Amino acid sequence: MITFGILATSPIAHEWMTAVNATGAYRLGAVYSRTLAKAQAFGEAYGSEVVAYDSLEAFLADPALDLIYIASPNGLHVSHSRLALEAGKHVVVEKPAVLRPAEWAELLSLAKEKKVMLFEAARNVHEKAVALVADFLKDQEILGANLRYGKYSSKMPALLAGELPNVFSAKFGGGALMDLGIYPLYLAHYWFGKPDRVAYQAQKWDWDVDLAGQAQLLYGDCLVTLQTAKNYTTYLPSEIYTRQGTLILDSIEAIGSVRFRDLSGQEQALPVTVASHQMEEEAVAFARMIEAEDWSAWENWAQLAQDVHETIWNLRQDATLVFEGD
Amino acid sequence: MITFGILATSPIAHEWMTAVNATGAYRLGAVYSRTLAKAQAFGEAYGSEVVAYDSLEAFLADPALDLIYIASPNGLHVSHSRLALEAGKHVVVEKPAVLRPAEWAELLSLAKEKKVMLFEAARNVHEKAVALVADFLKDQEILGANLRYGKYSSKMPALLAGELPNVFSAKFGGGALMDLGIYPLYLAHYWFGKPDRVAYQAQKWDWDVDLAGQAQLLYGDCLVTLQTAKNYTTYLPSEIYTRQGTLILDSIEAIGSVRFRDLSGQEQALPVTVASHQMEEEAVAFARMIEAEDWSAWENWAQLAQDVHETIWNLRQDATLVFEGD
Repeated sequence: MITFGILATSPIAHEWMTAVNATGAYRLGAVYSRTLAKAQAFGEAYGSEVVAYDSLEAFLADPALDLIYIASPNGLHVSHSRLALEAGKHVVVEKPAVLRPAEWAELLSLAKEKKVMLFEAARNVHEKAVALVADFLKDQEILGANLRYGKYSSKMPALLAGELPNVFSAKFGGGALMDLGIYPLYLAHYWFGKPDRVAYQAQKWDWDVDLAGQAQLLYGDCLVTLQTAKNYTTYLPSEIYTRQGTLILDSIEAIGSVRFRDLSGQEQALPVTVASHQMEEEAVAFARMIEAEDWSAWENWAQLAQDVHETIWNLRQDATLVFEGD
Repeated sequence: MITFGILATSPIAHEWMTAVNATGAYRLGAVYSRTLAKAQAFGEAYGSEVVAYDSLEAFLADPALDLIYIASPNGLHVSHSRLALEAGKHVVVEKPAVLRPAEWAELLSLAKEKKVMLFEAARNVHEKAVALVADFLKDQEILGANLRYGKYSSKMPALLAGELPNVFSAKFGGGALMDLGIYPLYLAHYWFGKPDRVAYQAQKWDWDVDLAGQAQLLYGDCLVTLQTAKNYTTYLPSEIYTRQGTLILDSIEAIGSVRFRDLSGQEQALPVTVASHQMEEEAVAFARMIEAEDWSAWENWAQLAQDVHETIWNLRQDATLVFEGD
């Protein structure tokens, strides 16, 4: 059983609670909020023995906590992760964990020094279906892929009305790539590895952040295309092309079905199972590594995150998407 | 009634016959083949008064013919079109009509000089559904589009076995872009105009022709992506993104359904009708322009073809796809 503390009582923290409660591997030990009443209310909703803190220092020093789940605003992820790691806690930090690969590298080296595990909560890459696809592709020659996640943002009307919601602010590392693009990027890196070259054609707002865009990841002459958008919705499935046929995925951020159509048009469905909660599979994966002290598995995941953040950085350079602090 | 001659008795010439017979606007007057028996057999299949020729000169000099339909191999399209235009005939030439925009410009100027009409048989752009989409988009702000046509070629096994079928030969202007990519390119030019900039990421075979590729057409920062392939099949629909929602097309080379999903997820179907034969709508369009002597409509279509071939040329330059004779 992993006893964990929750840093920040945002809606996603409630989702995390539902997910970890489904795993049976975690116990909520403490909650931190700048407002004690909020921490107390959150804790009470999930158990009578949860300690509430409004002091970050005291919260992180709580010896009962093995792990800190960080759900604070994106701009605070790095500093909160650093503090939690320095306190010797395992860390699960919501994505994007960092805005720059150097920050991830720094956190990683701190985690290694402190002998704790640091995870970016890239939940979709832990879905069983993702491993199933990897296994299916193992002996096939990949010709290319077409992955996407584009969803009209509820904040678009405000943006068009002249406001600047955080999700579209370069100051907070906003835009489509950081928010939604990271989902297909994780899968591309998991399935195909780190690309040789990348390019990003961004549709920008006010020369600042990307509302939509198309990334090209090149592996030799094999092209993986990623589409992302916050100013429109795409309803298209994703596809992976192999010498033997086409693999069709209904989604890349919550895979519900995977079908393979071979060159003759014959179709087979892969035996996809869907977890009871979207965040459950990542929670199980993190618990397994921590409990088994599987440092080698952890380093693989940490390296995957490093590669993803390096690719995001390269894509941003290509499209001249500059965040404050770059 | 337009009396026409058929140049070359290939399978597509039979398709053309079925289509024009459905229109009631055309009459087959003569057939040319290098083998007289072939010309006779083709003519007999469609009427007792069809003249058969094995002399190209005599065929093109036949005063009964108003128009020549050219279905010879791609490599002969330009020279056959030139001869037919010089003989003062209207010309319908199968696509790709030319491999280089300069060739189309030359044919066009010859057609104008001879006061006849020249058409590239880009059949899909004449579908009623295409005009319906244009009309639907008229008052909407376009954010981008994602058009595709990729189909596994029956000649792929031969290519992989070391042969070089014509459809994959740079000598004959082969590859995915010229063969299938021209379909989405025509629609993109019809709906969105000539792009400001283009780029093509090609997956090549032997550094020669493209087996698959992704083209980017930029209109300001509005991105239209075209996917094409002959080494795999894509089953994805196409999409057009507007400020009001997403238009979903089941196909771009034979549109059967068009649905618009607005920002709230409400869906409406456009009243798409499908012709009895895929080539019927182009045949009707060509007949209408010729019979009404609508030179201004014809010049618009001729300019569209010119724009498409200029874009193909620019895409080829970007991907260094060099054909013999470039």
